Amino acid sequence: MKSDYKTGLLRNRDCFYSCISGGITAPMGFKAAGVHCGIKRKKKDLAIIYSEVPAEASAVFTSNQVKAAPLLVDQNLLKEGDKFRAVVINSGNANACTGRKGIEDAKKMAVWTAKELGLLPAEVLVASTGKIGTFLPMDRIRQGIKNAVSSLDKNGSSDAAYAILTTDKVKKEIAVEIKIDGVVVRIGGIAKGSGMIYPNMATMLSFITTDALIDRDALKIAFKTAVDKSFNLITVDGERSTNDMVVILANGMAGNKKIYRNSSGCRIFQKALDYVCTELAKKIVRDGEGATKFIEVRVEGAANFEDAKKAAFSIANSNLVKTAMYGEDPNWGRIVSAIGNAPIKIDPEKIKVFFNGIQVVRKNMPVAGGREKVKKLLSQNNIEISVNLGIGKGDCTVWTSDLSPEYIRINSLYT
Amino acid sequence: MKSDYKTGLLRNRDCFYSCISGGITAPMGFKAAGVHCGIKRKKKDLAIIYSEVPAEASAVFTSNQVKAAPLLVDQNLLKEGDKFRAVVINSGNANACTGRKGIEDAKKMAVWTAKELGLLPAEVLVASTGKIGTFLPMDRIRQGIKNAVSSLDKNGSSDAAYAILTTDKVKKEIAVEIKIDGVVVRIGGIAKGSGMIYPNMATMLSFITTDALIDRDALKIAFKTAVDKSFNLITVDGERSTNDMVVILANGMAGNKKIYRNSSGCRIFQKALDYVCTELAKKIVRDGEGATKFIEVRVEGAANFEDAKKAAFSIANSNLVKTAMYGEDPNWGRIVSAIGNAPIKIDPEKIKVFFNGIQVVRKNMPVAGGREKVKKLLSQNNIEISVNLGIGKGDCTVWTSDLSPEYIRINSLYT
Repeated sequence: MKSDYKTGLLRNRDCFYSCISGGITAPMGFKAAGVHCGIKRKKKDLAIIYSEVPAEASAVFTSNQVKAAPLLVDQNLLKEGDKFRAVVINSGNANACTGRKGIEDAKKMAVWTAKELGLLPAEVLVASTGKIGTFLPMDRIRQGIKNAVSSLDKNGSSDAAYAILTTDKVKKEIAVEIKIDGVVVRIGGIAKGSGMIYPNMATMLSFITTDALIDRDALKIAFKTAVDKSFNLITVDGERSTNDMVVILANGMAGNKKIYRNSSGCRIFQKALDYVCTELAKKIVRDGEGATKFIEVRVEGAANFEDAKKAAFSIANSNLVKTAMYGEDPNWGRIVSAIGNAPIKIDPEKIKVFFNGIQVVRKNMPVAGGREKVKKLLSQNNIEISVNLGIGKGDCTVWTSDLSPEYIRINSLYT
Repeated sequence: MKSDYKTGLLRNRDCFYSCISGGITAPMGFKAAGVHCGIKRKKKDLAIIYSEVPAEASAVFTSNQVKAAPLLVDQNLLKEGDKFRAVVINSGNANACTGRKGIEDAKKMAVWTAKELGLLPAEVLVASTGKIGTFLPMDRIRQGIKNAVSSLDKNGSSDAAYAILTTDKVKKEIAVEIKIDGVVVRIGGIAKGSGMIYPNMATMLSFITTDALIDRDALKIAFKTAVDKSFNLITVDGERSTNDMVVILANGMAGNKKIYRNSSGCRIFQKALDYVCTELAKKIVRDGEGATKFIEVRVEGAANFEDAKKAAFSIANSNLVKTAMYGEDPNWGRIVSAIGNAPIKIDPEKIKVFFNGIQVVRKNMPVAGGREKVKKLLSQNNIEISVNLGIGKGDCTVWTSDLSPEYIRINSLYT
């Protein structure tokens, strides 16, 4: 699938799915709720996602070695390999760097949610996002869980999408419908991005639901693949938080023939899941802290995919590139320099650089008139930086935002 | 040598040298000049450093794979291993990404300087800093070289120190005197840091002179060691430019007994050279783009030096840590998260974090009252973040600045 830099959306002609409304409650058998329990002053801060029947689950956690309490609890649960029925999420407090008490608190969230829903605690996953190094207000959370369970609703996706946000400006929600062997299957998702009122660190969370009947291994591989193509290809500031996690629940209620690895059904499912994850990932970048530009960085002609990815992230994480984009300055020297800093094989003479399709660098020298042509294009909100390294056939596209004074304002004010 | 976070200066009791005035012309037999030739509108933009007798030379170049023309020319010259008599440096134009013409232009700078001074072109090194992707105005440079040569002066260090600056706010100059086997030997240096009126990328340049008589291998190793302990331990924004280079010239005019490797004289020389390079490196950080704070990041208790360095740079390059320091916010969660992101062995439970000596994190949990105590300290201009990983005996100290809106202002405005 090739992305379109004008809209940031995947092109429809490459898709086998159609977008539908309903977010995480679009798939059959899922309910959700989002309530205010008092961790934040006014906004919703506690969400529950619930499946009427046991669901296969898979999750990807932050690669940060310092992991928040709920992630440690979930990792243990997922190792057991049981099916899951619910996810409980709070925002406003990350329950990170909270020691043993933090672990106990995360477990209590699962126990209370299970009790209210008549489930086993081992059927409930837990997530948190927000301030670090502070214990959760457990009384409020207990009451919030009660309220959320009684608010669970077939149309509750939007409330849940709001309740997991921190300083995100907009909710992030999507759902699609595909046909597998003639049977309609749905995938929905919500996400939150980087930015908090008490900004100790950026956190990315996403929860995906599907009513597909799918083999556990097939689900795990499809999800890992989709995450690698989406959430793992975005950057706002090059920081991975202690709380990042993405989870998928597949409850099988669509009634399709079970999906196994390498089947045609699995390929359709994969494409749709890629789309859902990629769209949510892009929504996170668009709403990045202080973002005024959505930037797609495409690297082609690298020795392989990994090299292309390293070059793309070297550009996308460069403060100098990001400030130039904020300033609408076609400052390609910073792009070439960022490529030169990537730990990969390059030949400076072969590097070509384009802004929104217009070439500005050839043979390590400026293309005459390129800068002037591009200057106007950079006033748009969507910018495509594309690079050809002229070495091999590896390519990779990543997404990022610009770096503005607003990013610094948000992140330099603690209270 | 242990540094003092209050002053940023090395403690005198550890030193065998005394600071003197005169910068790069403090060592015997060196002259320098800095003139305005018209690359910049008004400020000095061309410098020459000259030794009355042939000098041993050593240099360290940027690790960026995209190297500017003068670096490519110098690398070739230094391979030959001849002695050198002069360095010619222009600011305002980096002569980077300028293809074959750029190489020819860099060579011409050496040829013209040699001609004016009655030297061989192969005795002259070349450096540039400034705007990228633009050809040098060679007519102006030719005239500038003539003027600089006729201005060469025993007190010319200050002029040269000014002429190599771009958007640096202050000149960076130092000189020290040591005794080796009873003979007085001098080392001087000038440097420029990150920031340009036409900011295509940050560039770090430094030129060191000494009248020590020293064996070529001993000089090379001593210089590499000093650079690793100083210029390679600073970061303003994690970007390495296409033009970074540091050069040392040793002309032997002090008349000391020749210094060979592993001698006591070499150890004294090394300490003094470390000091000169470290002080210049710190001056670069203090004058970093938009810097309002000077931050020393010390990591102890790592498995080894390399791990300590990775952890220290992971903290020092974190936008979230740097914006918190700008906001005077004791946001240790970001420090712990940055450590967790370093590709090294850690145990979150063992991490201790201190601000200016006051502990804020123990056993992955906040130290009661730590945050309040520290909040006041962070209003100072000098901040020491120190971390003990509790794993081994590796330690490393690096220096950085905070990230302020001014950094973005400087870097988002191209013209």
